[in-house]
Amino acid sequence: MARVKIDANVFLYPMPMVLVGTAEENRANFMAVAWVSRVNARPPMIAVALGKSHYTNPGIHKNKTFSVNVPGMDLLEKVDYCGLVSGKNDDKSQLFDIFYGGLSNTPMIQQCPLCMECKLVNAVDLPTNTLFIGEIIGACTEERFLTDGKPDIRKMFPFTLTMPDNNYWGVGNNIGKAWNIGKNLKTGK
Amino acid sequence: MARVKIDANVFLYPMPMVLVGTAEENRANFMAVAWVSRVNARPPMIAVALGKSHYTNPGIHKNKTFSVNVPGMDLLEKVDYCGLVSGKNDDKSQLFDIFYGGLSNTPMIQQCPLCMECKLVNAVDLPTNTLFIGEIIGACTEERFLTDGKPDIRKMFPFTLTMPDNNYWGVGNNIGKAWNIGKNLKTGK
Repeated sequence: MARVKIDANVFLYPMPMVLVGTAEENRANFMAVAWVSRVNARPPMIAVALGKSHYTNPGIHKNKTFSVNVPGMDLLEKVDYCGLVSGKNDDKSQLFDIFYGGLSNTPMIQQCPLCMECKLVNAVDLPTNTLFIGEIIGACTEERFLTDGKPDIRKMFPFTLTMPDNNYWGVGNNIGKAWNIGKNLKTGK
Repeated sequence: MARVKIDANVFLYPMPMVLVGTAEENRANFMAVAWVSRVNARPPMIAVALGKSHYTNPGIHKNKTFSVNVPGMDLLEKVDYCGLVSGKNDDKSQLFDIFYGGLSNTPMIQQCPLCMECKLVNAVDLPTNTLFIGEIIGACTEERFLTDGKPDIRKMFPFTLTMPDNNYWGVGNNIGKAWNIGKNLKTGK
């Protein structure tokens, strides 16, 4: 079928939703973020791309830390709320039960099935966003989210975002094993 | 319930799967990647974090371009195959129908519901990976994947990856509108 050129401002399908935690003026704050990715294997690093005007950014620059919290679907309304209001005007520190790991000024969320605390490694200055790269120095979950000692997406119920239609999506069916089902195409080896 | 500390080498749940396209030694090559994120709003930029030993990396450094192709589930085996074998040893240029946009040496995949061609903006050197940041200068799809002129995830059937359990997942149900359903929590405003 014929290709159609569309506006270059396209997005990934779908994008994982997280809450980025920081301490701003000594108050815990959480921002909803879908522009997030692992970026280094060893040591483990993760990056979040935040618009420069966000209330979260100065806290990361100052504390040199941030947290990444993977919420479950039971937190959907609260996550969306964190994306609707700025910590500049609204106190989001009471939305969740907060705990701390090894880093000070790096609040994590008890209700999230997976929490990572990160030390800032690099802040890449881009035109409208800053890409904060952090080393994951600690990760927390609960036994009930694990299978064979690994986080199990079927127990965590994370969710994803699509833009610019602005919809949240659950996770669908398991459709195959990675680094495995493509073996069918290896011929004569 | 009690928190459990787990190994810090944790991942996002789930991660979007794409194929990164490059020209290596004048041959189209495609690499399966889940460490990918939008990183800048205006102009649109996307980043992919590739292990340094990959065959793809020198091509991006040399051509200063790459493509990001979002595959549908009908390409699952081929995508996994692209993650199993290196372009160093295997010719992946015949796996898909290839087309080009405005950039030379930047092959895109006709069978993918969404393709982006990117100009390299920055290559961030991390310990084991290089984070290639590209400006999306063109995007292609087909009419059949659009609703109201926007790519529709329900028509594209993209899929996601979880690690370290190494599973692929489809997209689940629509669970709400973003920048909207959290309004219920806005009180007295």
